[in-house]
Amino acid sequence: MKKVINQADNVVREMLEGFEEAHADYVRSLEGTTVLLRKDAPVTGKVSLISGGGSGHEPAHAGYVGEGMLDAAVAGEMFTSPTPDQVFEAIKAANGGEGVFLVIKNYTGDVMNFEMARELAEAEGISVEQVVVNDDVAVEDSSFTNGRRGIAGTVFVHKAAGAKAAEGASLEDVKKVAEKVVANTRSMGVALTPCIVPGSGKPSFTLEEDEMEVGIGIHGEPGIERKKITSADDIAEELLQKVLQDSVDFQGSEVAVMVNGLGATPASELYIVNRYVQKRLRDNDIQVTHTYVGEYMTSLEMAGFSITLMKVDEELKQLLDARADTPAFRK
Amino acid sequence: MKKVINQADNVVREMLEGFEEAHADYVRSLEGTTVLLRKDAPVTGKVSLISGGGSGHEPAHAGYVGEGMLDAAVAGEMFTSPTPDQVFEAIKAANGGEGVFLVIKNYTGDVMNFEMARELAEAEGISVEQVVVNDDVAVEDSSFTNGRRGIAGTVFVHKAAGAKAAEGASLEDVKKVAEKVVANTRSMGVALTPCIVPGSGKPSFTLEEDEMEVGIGIHGEPGIERKKITSADDIAEELLQKVLQDSVDFQGSEVAVMVNGLGATPASELYIVNRYVQKRLRDNDIQVTHTYVGEYMTSLEMAGFSITLMKVDEELKQLLDARADTPAFRK
Repeated sequence: MKKVINQADNVVREMLEGFEEAHADYVRSLEGTTVLLRKDAPVTGKVSLISGGGSGHEPAHAGYVGEGMLDAAVAGEMFTSPTPDQVFEAIKAANGGEGVFLVIKNYTGDVMNFEMARELAEAEGISVEQVVVNDDVAVEDSSFTNGRRGIAGTVFVHKAAGAKAAEGASLEDVKKVAEKVVANTRSMGVALTPCIVPGSGKPSFTLEEDEMEVGIGIHGEPGIERKKITSADDIAEELLQKVLQDSVDFQGSEVAVMVNGLGATPASELYIVNRYVQKRLRDNDIQVTHTYVGEYMTSLEMAGFSITLMKVDEELKQLLDARADTPAFRK
Repeated sequence: MKKVINQADNVVREMLEGFEEAHADYVRSLEGTTVLLRKDAPVTGKVSLISGGGSGHEPAHAGYVGEGMLDAAVAGEMFTSPTPDQVFEAIKAANGGEGVFLVIKNYTGDVMNFEMARELAEAEGISVEQVVVNDDVAVEDSSFTNGRRGIAGTVFVHKAAGAKAAEGASLEDVKKVAEKVVANTRSMGVALTPCIVPGSGKPSFTLEEDEMEVGIGIHGEPGIERKKITSADDIAEELLQKVLQDSVDFQGSEVAVMVNGLGATPASELYIVNRYVQKRLRDNDIQVTHTYVGEYMTSLEMAGFSITLMKVDEELKQLLDARADTPAFRK
């Protein structure tokens, strides 16, 4: 197990400290918690956005804290939901008086703990709304989830709902945008190698030297199929087909594309995938308006990638184009 | 060899195509070459900056093409210098009339080929100056180099000299800034795993399951020592000591810090390293003015990282703070 860490128990705390030191222009920690807040939080006059979840998906979510995206990110232990009290502290600290909106990836622990935090906050008179992101078309139900999993498409929720909140929209209108993103976003991933949670000492699954796992989850949860590695174009085609054949009708529409690296895949390979994705969509009369290639939602040192498509309308295009200034996403 | 590619021979071309499609707001390709130009090149009224080298170090260098940094990047094959004619084409296309400045990492092939291109350009009446970056303190001479290697510190040259050029400074003044960066920048890296050049089918070196290579080069060239992996703090300390004990006197000064991932190391681990680096410098009366944590100069899917320190004065601080808008670096 080759990791650049000190003690496994301290990984999340030390990571957060190092993150805060690197990005003190953007964030500050909330003492005694694993919450990173916008430096100027609470920001008044706007709805506050909060996301979070297990660690190991960096730059999600702390990397998206800043102007135009999140007001706070709550970090759990590696691949483990943050506790309700941590989320509750984030809500109280981020709330600027216009209400708080929670962006939750669809994992059983996250949904339960964020909803408990929401109840605690509502009991104190804070208005809270939420969306549950479930963009992964690979599988229904899974080791961490009832229903579909939330993966890289979550970043589109941060961006669009964050921009809507920055405009001064109401909590209800922020929620509508978030729901529109969720309704129009579909993703799927593939892994070439597993990852190892610090302290566990062993990979979450194993793959032969010539195998890949299609439809992998961002915690290494099983996908659809384990098979021999094929070419970049063939792998991209397989993911795209599944995404395009799902319940969103992308045909003839405009889309935002994300080719997301899971951790260990070189940028050069992500660009080779993007080349195919762009060509394939063009050939199918789907117009790409926005393209994002890079590491947005990772799975520690897993090799692999995911492809996300979001069908966009004028409102979503304008929200993607709006100013964002965070450590991991600027526009 | 698990890679997301099509044919090994096409990796660089396909990567560049996918890059251009992803970042068409920033770059355009120069037909028939491996050159990516600023979309609005040639930009008049300023010195044009060009860098490049072997591929496999993404986002270097195409990721730094844009306002405030490079005017063009020239990509060679994987870990192989671009040919003089490619660099020459870049010079001609990027030249806006105020001269061209070449940022060359110190590898034998790069220095030779960029200098040949310079001669070709000068024969056509284009003013060309250059700097050779050699920030890696690990070893003198190496499999690819006479003298010290150029690694992640190169990005500080792009940023500072690029900002100077954007101010409208003369070719001579851009060169002075680049030389100041080189004189004040020192780096060292460590690898936990090797990387594999597409098509070669085997790693450039091997490490045991509990070993690391201290002082690694970005092509997997040998470092100083192969030893058992220690803690993040101990590894960071070992790199920092070597950097601090080199010929730049950092004591009592202000510095910019870069903790650079080599490809497969999770962001969480880079932040854990950053935590130690910041503490260690603070304890030693060295004031950090700028911090950069992420993948700036990679080595395909190598696991590991490098630490770079640049001693800064008022001019360099101001140049780091100047506007930059490129795919991989924004300010």
